[in-house]
Amino acid sequence: MAEQEQTPQRRPGGRSARIQQAVFAAVLKEVVAQGYAKATLGAVAERSGVHRTTIYRRWSDLDTLLVEALRDRSGHPVVPRDTGALATDLAAYAQDIVEVLAADTGRIISAVLGSEAARLDGVRGILGEVLTTRRPLSSEIVRRAVARGEAPRGTVDVEVIDHLVAPLYFRLLLTGEPLDTDVARRCAAATTAAVRAGIFVREPGPASGSPSGR
Amino acid sequence: MAEQEQTPQRRPGGRSARIQQAVFAAVLKEVVAQGYAKATLGAVAERSGVHRTTIYRRWSDLDTLLVEALRDRSGHPVVPRDTGALATDLAAYAQDIVEVLAADTGRIISAVLGSEAARLDGVRGILGEVLTTRRPLSSEIVRRAVARGEAPRGTVDVEVIDHLVAPLYFRLLLTGEPLDTDVARRCAAATTAAVRAGIFVREPGPASGSPSGR
Repeated sequence: MAEQEQTPQRRPGGRSARIQQAVFAAVLKEVVAQGYAKATLGAVAERSGVHRTTIYRRWSDLDTLLVEALRDRSGHPVVPRDTGALATDLAAYAQDIVEVLAADTGRIISAVLGSEAARLDGVRGILGEVLTTRRPLSSEIVRRAVARGEAPRGTVDVEVIDHLVAPLYFRLLLTGEPLDTDVARRCAAATTAAVRAGIFVREPGPASGSPSGR
Repeated sequence: MAEQEQTPQRRPGGRSARIQQAVFAAVLKEVVAQGYAKATLGAVAERSGVHRTTIYRRWSDLDTLLVEALRDRSGHPVVPRDTGALATDLAAYAQDIVEVLAADTGRIISAVLGSEAARLDGVRGILGEVLTTRRPLSSEIVRRAVARGEAPRGTVDVEVIDHLVAPLYFRLLLTGEPLDTDVARRCAAATTAAVRAGIFVREPGPASGSPSGR
């Protein structure tokens, strides 16, 4: 786990960082297991093996702790791989997202977004940060495809990536259908076909102007 | 409102049906306004103008009332129009879904799925019913397209429709970006391109067999 190095407000390693990681892991497990409404700091203490006075001293309430734990988690976005072609870049990215959503992170996203925690300002903020972090990363896929002549000039990167991953979140949050290699492959193929057909090219409209303006 | 005719357990019209509709509307408004965790039967009484003893007599608790109100709402699925071509059928359907999600129903879906109410068995049941009702309706679009030779034989209807609407739910539940004609048009065009490219044709695999088996 490289997570300890990525917690800037504390020295890497050491007892304090270990406690923090144990408590973060425990609160996320607790929310997945019990739901946000039933989770308590007491249960987090029990699950983490960290004394509750230590927890209360550092985090005033469950919401603060949950938001910090989610922010710690969200600091590890899926970085798209450069496979040399649009179809395989999208397939690799969809597969990586499937692996995240089919595992613990998917259960956490589902538990948090399917609870009153979804209304917390801190949670909405992290969701916004995740999207704004992920988008420039993943839009590299589209930039490379345009440069190689695989995607038409003017293809709006954000639209491509949102269309790629939306059916995965649809399964996670709505249908509960499996997140597997098959759906990743289909999402990538569908999005590749749409990109090639020029569907995500920004059409000049009354509100348009700069090609990057949204 | 034709809703009263569609409530089989009570006689159409009459005071009882009017009260029921007022209470159903009030509980949904209350959950949208306050969130599920803060909603109470008392607030529903106030909002509906129906005396709280009347409400308590008919519905034992908020969860029961909420599930009944959601079920009443979910009995009016979007029926796809037959426009004579795949591209326009998908565009019309996406536009109809956008109109639903951009209006009250979208706010209700968002408030319910973004709360602990998402964990209620009744709510999961309705979600399942909505999906199983909507799918045979919307798969008519794919059947017609296959019959006209616009889509390859073996195109899996459910995949097509899920890919069509997923980016709309992605906006509703995750990004909060606007649900408008523009996104409906893009979803329809992207899905049409993918259908034509044969992306949603079931590939023969180890677990396959009947073409309709999922």
